[in-house]
Amino acid sequence: MKTIPASEFEERQKRAQQRVAEAGLDAVIVHSNEADFANVRYLSDYWPAFESAGVIIPAKGKPILLIGPESETYALDRSQIETVRKVLWYRESAEPDYPDIPISTFAEVFAEACGGRPVKRLGIVGRAIFPKVIYEEIRKALPGVEMVGADEIVSDMRIIKSPSEIALLKEGFRISEIAIDECLAQMKPGMTELQVVGLALKSLYSHGAEYEAHPQYVMGGTNTNHAISRATYRPLAQGEMIQLNLGARVGGYSPSVGRPCCFGRMPDEMRRLVQVGLEAHLKTMEFMRAGVLAKDVVRRFEEFVKSRGYGGNLLYGPCHGIGMIEVERPWMESTSDYLLQENMTFQVDTFLHTDSYGLRWEDGVRVMADGVERLSSRRQEVLELPL
Amino acid sequence: MKTIPASEFEERQKRAQQRVAEAGLDAVIVHSNEADFANVRYLSDYWPAFESAGVIIPAKGKPILLIGPESETYALDRSQIETVRKVLWYRESAEPDYPDIPISTFAEVFAEACGGRPVKRLGIVGRAIFPKVIYEEIRKALPGVEMVGADEIVSDMRIIKSPSEIALLKEGFRISEIAIDECLAQMKPGMTELQVVGLALKSLYSHGAEYEAHPQYVMGGTNTNHAISRATYRPLAQGEMIQLNLGARVGGYSPSVGRPCCFGRMPDEMRRLVQVGLEAHLKTMEFMRAGVLAKDVVRRFEEFVKSRGYGGNLLYGPCHGIGMIEVERPWMESTSDYLLQENMTFQVDTFLHTDSYGLRWEDGVRVMADGVERLSSRRQEVLELPL
Repeated sequence: MKTIPASEFEERQKRAQQRVAEAGLDAVIVHSNEADFANVRYLSDYWPAFESAGVIIPAKGKPILLIGPESETYALDRSQIETVRKVLWYRESAEPDYPDIPISTFAEVFAEACGGRPVKRLGIVGRAIFPKVIYEEIRKALPGVEMVGADEIVSDMRIIKSPSEIALLKEGFRISEIAIDECLAQMKPGMTELQVVGLALKSLYSHGAEYEAHPQYVMGGTNTNHAISRATYRPLAQGEMIQLNLGARVGGYSPSVGRPCCFGRMPDEMRRLVQVGLEAHLKTMEFMRAGVLAKDVVRRFEEFVKSRGYGGNLLYGPCHGIGMIEVERPWMESTSDYLLQENMTFQVDTFLHTDSYGLRWEDGVRVMADGVERLSSRRQEVLELPL
Repeated sequence: MKTIPASEFEERQKRAQQRVAEAGLDAVIVHSNEADFANVRYLSDYWPAFESAGVIIPAKGKPILLIGPESETYALDRSQIETVRKVLWYRESAEPDYPDIPISTFAEVFAEACGGRPVKRLGIVGRAIFPKVIYEEIRKALPGVEMVGADEIVSDMRIIKSPSEIALLKEGFRISEIAIDECLAQMKPGMTELQVVGLALKSLYSHGAEYEAHPQYVMGGTNTNHAISRATYRPLAQGEMIQLNLGARVGGYSPSVGRPCCFGRMPDEMRRLVQVGLEAHLKTMEFMRAGVLAKDVVRRFEEFVKSRGYGGNLLYGPCHGIGMIEVERPWMESTSDYLLQENMTFQVDTFLHTDSYGLRWEDGVRVMADGVERLSSRRQEVLELPL
């Protein structure tokens, strides 16, 4: 099983329509781009490349998938929304004219989706990335429309995972763990970070990934101090911190497994930080179960790290949501006032750093009534690789 | 040489500042995200992951790189703009609060960039992807500001390539051609499209790519009919059209090489279309030189294909700009009224299709006074692979 069943897409669309109506909206327009693909894919299974994409979900009427001028045959093969329309504003950022390709206007696609009913209140889903230029075009197409942020229409649906979603996450974790094993076995001192990325990707795709879950992290030395980073041409060396975060995307779900390691013996101070990180990482999992307040998990994690004398090595909180995007709602911060619920899924993401290096343990969990189900757990040990 | 020299970044920033002043603007704000990274990287060498990024280029003052809350150590290591500031609105789309990370406001960063001078006219670069939410935050921060589209401030600079840019493109094409060779040698019937993507990526990264230039295209059968697509779990089979488009990104430059191929003997009709495509592909290169009107190249390409009796197999024009994004300005369409100039670089992108399959020859060229320099040229032949 490498995809969400068609019936579940239908159910998502229906549920979204209901939520649109309940929110007193006439419709929502959902926006995704190549990097931030999740909301459109959640509703349609379509996943843009080069171009961007949208979905109109009307309170009454039929959903429409909006694509750029070049993606029609691809979208028709993949979309779980039957009606697919090309709109100029989802084109590539090079902004071609496409004089020979027939395209629809926003006025046309809203009229079609809403059966000609006027759109007075329109919700925007994907607010953080919603382009100003599309906003203006819609305003011109729907005179007098009021547009309001409505991310929660879709993001609240995405937070609790269905059995199919959990199965796809597990398959992604399975493949990611194989890639960790294969990289640990194949990487050698002197290889560049980027060459090890190549090994990781071959492993991920040969075992069943549909894409990388995120830009693969292979970092050595001071580069491990980056909370967000990209692999470089730096050769990996003996005795330095090396960080792997590898992730396979499957059916649109994007887990990741993170392991710190070292060629040869880990220096003592580094080993201690790695061990405290792993202890804290496993503690966080013990703190989690349905009904717990999210910020309490953060507080207990921080207290634990401080009690071990490593409070100064913290950068941020211990968990973030995992699903279609490797980092998605809900985040877990000291301000997080929500309760954990069954079938929420999180990455437990334990990042500790010094001035000269950092390390990250990262594994997936599913929240259950009495604790968590671990979605990945291999190689939770001090990893010293042969030279 | 895997990067643009620091001096060239400095020169780009100075030239951009001059262009901002000449356009009667007080500043521009440039926007990029993980997928559409080019404008920010062109000015700073910084390249976001997970988060997005911006650059303020003031008419007078100092450029500032704007990043999300989690990218500071990464950005400081990489940025060719000295001043780097964290602003909440470049955060991940999961929209964390970051209660413990100190961040700057738009009012502060504009005041710092412009030395306290008021910003009355602000240009937006990256209009197609510029988020409405950032637009509104800036409007609040700069009361009375007029914001206008200003993509040309940067895109006009990017169109004519410098010797360093051409060197990076050539390096990317060199690696892409190796990946084509290695995939052609290693792929076997029964492998899935995605498994061949894994082979391609291992090859690209082991020979020096910093990333994929675009999602790698490995498609078989009816999937080759997609102008834009993504590889699937479909196994590749004997006698069907198989399309490879492989591209290595190097120093931010993103070329691609496209070759149609087949396991075993190509069916006659398919072979004829592949050959006509290749003839037309090479003809396009003959039509190009500095001083030629872009739309004339399109017209002559279309006339050539029609003269061979394959006009009904055309989808779109024969070239698009190549540089940091695999598809960038200037496009070449029947409406393209500009003259080719020396050191413009194009992908010659020859896509022909039937109802059941498509094929694409794709190679890079640099425009010269008397013709083009070919940036890739290997394996321009009918490619029948052993079974």
